[in-house]
Amino acid sequence: MRAVGLIVEYNPFHNGHAHHLQASKEVSKADVVIAVMSGNFLQRGEPALVSKWQRTKMALLNGVDIVFELPYCFATQKAETFANGAVSILDAVGSNYLCFGSESGNLSSFIQTIEYLDEMGSTFNENIKHYIETGVSYPRALALAFQQLPDSERYLDLGKPNNILGIEYIKAINQQKSNVIPLTIPRKNANYHDQDFASATIASATSIRKAIFTDSEENSVIDQYVPGPTKQLLKEYLQSYQVYHQWENYWSYLQFRLIHSSPEELRDIYEMEEGLEYRLLSAAREANTFHEFMEMIKTKRYTWTRLQRLCVHILTNTKKEEMALTSEKASYLRLLGMTPLGREYLNKTKSHLSLPLISKLSAFKGKEIYPDIRAARIYSLGIPSHLKAAMMHQEFEHPPIYIR
Amino acid sequence: MRAVGLIVEYNPFHNGHAHHLQASKEVSKADVVIAVMSGNFLQRGEPALVSKWQRTKMALLNGVDIVFELPYCFATQKAETFANGAVSILDAVGSNYLCFGSESGNLSSFIQTIEYLDEMGSTFNENIKHYIETGVSYPRALALAFQQLPDSERYLDLGKPNNILGIEYIKAINQQKSNVIPLTIPRKNANYHDQDFASATIASATSIRKAIFTDSEENSVIDQYVPGPTKQLLKEYLQSYQVYHQWENYWSYLQFRLIHSSPEELRDIYEMEEGLEYRLLSAAREANTFHEFMEMIKTKRYTWTRLQRLCVHILTNTKKEEMALTSEKASYLRLLGMTPLGREYLNKTKSHLSLPLISKLSAFKGKEIYPDIRAARIYSLGIPSHLKAAMMHQEFEHPPIYIR
Repeated sequence: MRAVGLIVEYNPFHNGHAHHLQASKEVSKADVVIAVMSGNFLQRGEPALVSKWQRTKMALLNGVDIVFELPYCFATQKAETFANGAVSILDAVGSNYLCFGSESGNLSSFIQTIEYLDEMGSTFNENIKHYIETGVSYPRALALAFQQLPDSERYLDLGKPNNILGIEYIKAINQQKSNVIPLTIPRKNANYHDQDFASATIASATSIRKAIFTDSEENSVIDQYVPGPTKQLLKEYLQSYQVYHQWENYWSYLQFRLIHSSPEELRDIYEMEEGLEYRLLSAAREANTFHEFMEMIKTKRYTWTRLQRLCVHILTNTKKEEMALTSEKASYLRLLGMTPLGREYLNKTKSHLSLPLISKLSAFKGKEIYPDIRAARIYSLGIPSHLKAAMMHQEFEHPPIYIR
Repeated sequence: MRAVGLIVEYNPFHNGHAHHLQASKEVSKADVVIAVMSGNFLQRGEPALVSKWQRTKMALLNGVDIVFELPYCFATQKAETFANGAVSILDAVGSNYLCFGSESGNLSSFIQTIEYLDEMGSTFNENIKHYIETGVSYPRALALAFQQLPDSERYLDLGKPNNILGIEYIKAINQQKSNVIPLTIPRKNANYHDQDFASATIASATSIRKAIFTDSEENSVIDQYVPGPTKQLLKEYLQSYQVYHQWENYWSYLQFRLIHSSPEELRDIYEMEEGLEYRLLSAAREANTFHEFMEMIKTKRYTWTRLQRLCVHILTNTKKEEMALTSEKASYLRLLGMTPLGREYLNKTKSHLSLPLISKLSAFKGKEIYPDIRAARIYSLGIPSHLKAAMMHQEFEHPPIYIR
C-alpha cells in the first residue's frame, strides 16, 4: 500500500485542507493518507480551538486514514524543529511521500533554493547576524539577509512562512537520510495572514477562527469555508465542553504563574531569554487580559508567535533542561485515530515500525511522553471543571478514534 | 501613654472581639490599643474573608488605635512561630502589655503550666515522640503526651488551641527578654469550634463566616453577632469587589500549580514533607473543588489546618529556602492603619522604634517584605480581574488607613 503523509494542525479542518488532501492523493497516487497532526498546543503558541480528539475526527471524516500526534516538543517550535519531528514520524511509519502545500507548487524551486543557501552559507549567516544586531526578529533578519544575496529574486521568497516550512521539510528529509519523497502542490487559498472573507469557498484557518470568536450567530458565516463534518464537530464540541479554546481561557493561569514565580524560576523555562523574564513579570501585574499582556511585552526583537510559544511553555512549565534531553527525532508514535483502511495499513506495517506505537496512553510507561501529558492536563483547564475528568479519561484510557 | 497589645485576625471583627478589646483596656488601664493583625492569609491556612485593609477599618472603627500587619512568614505558621513574630512586633513598638483571651482567664495557670512543662521536659518529649510514631498529628500527640504526665490534670488542657497559643505568647516574651507584660482575660464565647448559633450575641468567627457563605439573605442572620461597622464594611466590600474570599476562589490556581509542577519542584515548598507531594499531585488531577481535594489528601497524620497552610504556601510559592532566611523576630513594622490617638502614640514613640516603620510600601526597598507582596498579589486574584489594579494600588501607594 502506498502512503502519502501530510503535516497538519487542522485548526479547524477547512476547504483548503480538503483540497490539499485530495490533490496530495492524486499527485502521489497513494492509497492511504497519513496525517501528522499537532496536539493541543500549536506552532503559533496557541491552544487549539478544539481538542486533538475532535480535530482527529475532523481529519478522519474528511478523508485522512491515520492520524498521529506530533508531540508537544516538536509542535510548539520553530520551523526547523517542527519539521524534524514531523518528518521523523512519517519516516518511522514508512510513508512513501510527504506532500506539502506551497505558493509555487514547484518542488525544484525548493531544491534550488536549498542548494543556493548552502552555497551562500557564510555570507548569508553574516547577513543574518548583521540584521539581528539591528534589533529585528530572527524571521525578519532571515528574510532581509536573503534579499541581500546576489540573484536572490530568482529563488523562493524566504519572507513567506510556508516557504520556510517547505525548505525545512526537505532539509529534514535529507538530514535524516529518510526514504520519504517530498512533493509539493500549489496552495489554493489567499494570503495566509489575510483575515477578511472573500466570496470564495477557501479562507485561512486564522480568519475562520476569528469569525468563530466574533460571530454570535452560531457561526453560520463559516459554513461556506468548512466541510459539513467540521461544522458538525465544532458544534458538538461546544455542546459537550461549553467553550472553544483560546488564550484568554488560560490567561488567569498564566498571570498567576508569573505573579508567584521568581525571575530565577522563570529563567529555567524553555525559550526564556535573558532579561525577558522581568518584562513578563511586570506586564503580568498590570494586564487584565492576555491580549493586553501581549501588547505590553511585544518588541521589534521578538515576533508575536515567538512570545506566544514562550507563554505556552510557561503555562506547561516546560524547562530548558527537559527540552535539551529531547532528540531531533520523535521517539514514539502516538496514534490518535484511524479508518478501516488506516487500520489495514497499520496491520501490514506494524512489524516494520521503527518506533514504539502508543494506542492507549495508560499502557505506555516512557517518561518522554510527560510533556504531552502535562500539555493535555493544562489544556483541560480551559473547559469547565466538572468536564475535565471526561477529557482526561479520553487521554489516558480511550483507544484511538476509529471511524468506519 | 500606656499601650496594650492584642494579637488578632478579625476575620471578621465580632462581638467577642469587642468584648476582649474593652476588657483588655480595663484590665491594663491602657490609653492606646495596638493590634498585630494577620494579613490576607491566616493561621488556619485560609484566605481572609475580606482584605487586610477592610479588616483594619473594622478594627479602627471598633476601638483599636493602631494596626500593624503580622507578616506572612509568621501569620501562616504553627503557634510557636506565630507567637514569636507577633510578640516581637509588640515589643518593637513599646507596647506595655499583651492581653490575650483564654478559657481560664488566669495568668498564673499559664505560668505554672510552662514551669511544669520545663520540669517534665524530657519525659514530655519522649511521650510526644511515642504518639507521633503511632501516626497521629503533632497537636494530638502533644495533648495525649501531656495527659500522660503525672498530675497533668492540675494544669492547663493542652488539647485546647487557645491554651497552646497563650503558652507560646508567654514563652516568646521570656525568650525574647521582652518588656511586654502578659495579661489574660476570660474568653466570653462558646467553644471555638462550635459552628451553631445560640441565642447569645457572641459567636465564633468560624460560625459567622459559615453563615455568611451559606446565607443568601444579605447575611441578616449575623447581625446579632457583629458590631454595626463590621456589618457595614462587609457589605461595602461585597459591593466593591463582588466576593468574599474563600479557598474555592483560589482552587483553580492551586490545581493548575499542582498539575504543571514536578514532584521535585513541590518538594522545595515550605512545609512539604517527603512523600506528601505525590499525594497532592494525584488528588489535584481528580478533585473538582478545594473541599474534594482536601478530603482526598487528609490523613490521621496531618491536621486539616496543617494541610491548608501547606496549600497556601504552594499558592504563594513560598520555599523552604526562603523561610529558612527569616529570623525568629519580625524585621519591619508595616503600619496598616491608625486613629488620631494612634498617630499621637506613634509620634511619641517613633524615635524609639527598634524596627523600620513602613507606612507606604513603595518607599520600602527591603527584600524581606517580598513574601507579603506576593501574598497580596495572589490574594488579589480572588477578586474580578478588572478590580485587581485598585487593590494593588492600595497595597503599594496608599498611606495607612486613617480614621478620625
